[in-house]
Amino acid sequence: MHGTQKTDRPLPGFVGGTLDRVDHVRTNPALLAQAFADPAARRLVLDGLEPVEVEGHLVLEPIGADAQMMDHVLLGVDRQARPIFARLVKDLGPNLVPTPRSRAIAGLIPADEVALYGAARSLVHWHARHPFCSVCGGATQAVKAGWSRRCETCGAEHFPRTDPVVIMLAEHEGRVLLGRQHSWPEGRYSALAGFVEPGETIEEAVAREIHEEAGVRVHSVRYVMSQPWPFPSSLMIACVAQAQDDALRIDETEIEHAFWCDADGVRAAMAGDSDAPFVAPPQMAVAWHLLDHWLGKVVPAAPSA
Amino acid sequence: MHGTQKTDRPLPGFVGGTLDRVDHVRTNPALLAQAFADPAARRLVLDGLEPVEVEGHLVLEPIGADAQMMDHVLLGVDRQARPIFARLVKDLGPNLVPTPRSRAIAGLIPADEVALYGAARSLVHWHARHPFCSVCGGATQAVKAGWSRRCETCGAEHFPRTDPVVIMLAEHEGRVLLGRQHSWPEGRYSALAGFVEPGETIEEAVAREIHEEAGVRVHSVRYVMSQPWPFPSSLMIACVAQAQDDALRIDETEIEHAFWCDADGVRAAMAGDSDAPFVAPPQMAVAWHLLDHWLGKVVPAAPSA
Ligand SMILES: [Zn+2]
Ligand SMILES: [Zn+2]
Repeated sequence: MHGTQKTDRPLPGFVGGTLDRVDHVRTNPALLAQAFADPAARRLVLDGLEPVEVEGHLVLEPIGADAQMMDHVLLGVDRQARPIFARLVKDLGPNLVPTPRSRAIAGLIPADEVALYGAARSLVHWHARHPFCSVCGGATQAVKAGWSRRCETCGAEHFPRTDPVVIMLAEHEGRVLLGRQHSWPEGRYSALAGFVEPGETIEEAVAREIHEEAGVRVHSVRYVMSQPWPFPSSLMIACVAQAQDDALRIDETEIEHAFWCDADGVRAAMAGDSDAPFVAPPQMAVAWHLLDHWLGKVVPAAPSA
Repeated sequence: MHGTQKTDRPLPGFVGGTLDRVDHVRTNPALLAQAFADPAARRLVLDGLEPVEVEGHLVLEPIGADAQMMDHVLLGVDRQARPIFARLVKDLGPNLVPTPRSRAIAGLIPADEVALYGAARSLVHWHARHPFCSVCGGATQAVKAGWSRRCETCGAEHFPRTDPVVIMLAEHEGRVLLGRQHSWPEGRYSALAGFVEPGETIEEAVAREIHEEAGVRVHSVRYVMSQPWPFPSSLMIACVAQAQDDALRIDETEIEHAFWCDADGVRAAMAGDSDAPFVAPPQMAVAWHLLDHWLGKVVPAAPSA
């Protein structure tokens, strides 16, 4: 994990994994046994679902001789050719909500390690929530190096889930729409967001969510970037859309408040100015990068006459 | 559902739904009961998971007085202000694999009805596969107008899943990489595809899949469009990427064959020419639209000296 290049431009958190996921090993029992028995193999140390960091790196431990492959997921092979595993946990207890520690990890360790932690967290969480088969209620067990669970009773196969979420800025005459949820820290505003539903495109989900939350109709949805978000297993899909007008009708069950912010306001918030019109999301969040992207593209509105 | 505008440019199948999903009704028991009891309310007729079409339209039936809301999912409200439901089915039997009929529906009915069918199919399928709680094995029941299931034993809430899939063209000097799966009709080639995994961006998944399946390294991944694909519940995310070189190393467990095709070959295949180098995917598939998009952008390679 050492020797990672730091890029000039920061990445959103959990982006930039460098493990080779060695898909072909997952379904090959001989190769998998060999990887698990490899003296170079390492297991990511987790505290429940929380990361463990020492001196700026995640902690990786040797795998004991009495460990069982079926209690692990193979995350991949690192650049030093070490197979990297995480241990599956049967009972996480109530410890499923991300603590400040798991979010802060993005500032403490290199980007590729943050990405490794994110993948591990999503997978360990998914296994802990799927000891039973949703089809028949029977017990399931991990197969394919932890990339699937099979029902011992009905044979159904279940795969780790990844939930696509749209997160987006509506743009109108040089301003963007920002909203805040009831639970957020004081002053924090960000892009609106919501899950993509069955039967929708990304673009349709963007338009629906902005209309539901703020009453704004949009068109010309443009994809910007994506980010895995392991709380527990979202794929954030960041977009910019053009608003038809700037009248707001806020759904207060979904968001507490929303407003249109111009580029000067966004720039001040991103710089952390104390008189900025809002507190920006953290740099690990894709919303920060979406705002940064928008600042690079925005055409200021013509001054009013 | 009638009176739908046909657009000049065909949409990929299942894109272009026009129902208002009325998210606020799902969690409001009074509004939901009102919608279900509305004499204008209609239920989509399905044959298991298969569509039922008469005279170029889906069949919608009145909801009987003895029907129970909890056996239904509220798909939304149509342009005639009719609440549209689908009935949840406890046992679909082995009838889960899409037949030619459910794929052919895209050519028989208007685009917005294809989209309605797609959403209904994904949701009905998901409920049928989730009568039990994956956390504790207890029985679950549909809540929130069929947009969630709650475990009666442990209280866990489970949401319909949507699986993001990347589908992509690698491009190299005026040619694109096409592959075929072992099970496909003779001569059929299409874009490579695969599920986005936990801990990956869309762009990382594109690069991983092309490398896994064809041994090609890519960069500069560009998003093109998306499509819901209800077999059972994918979100297809279509991209173009730039290949570093054109050497192929095909993983024959994943694909049967792959080759680089120039624009003339793609154009001939899309036109259905009998001497085209491959049989194109159907127009309902997002791969058709991805190839069509690529033809509109491609810069032919300079002729060799
Ligand atoms: Zn089962
Ligand atoms: Zn339960």
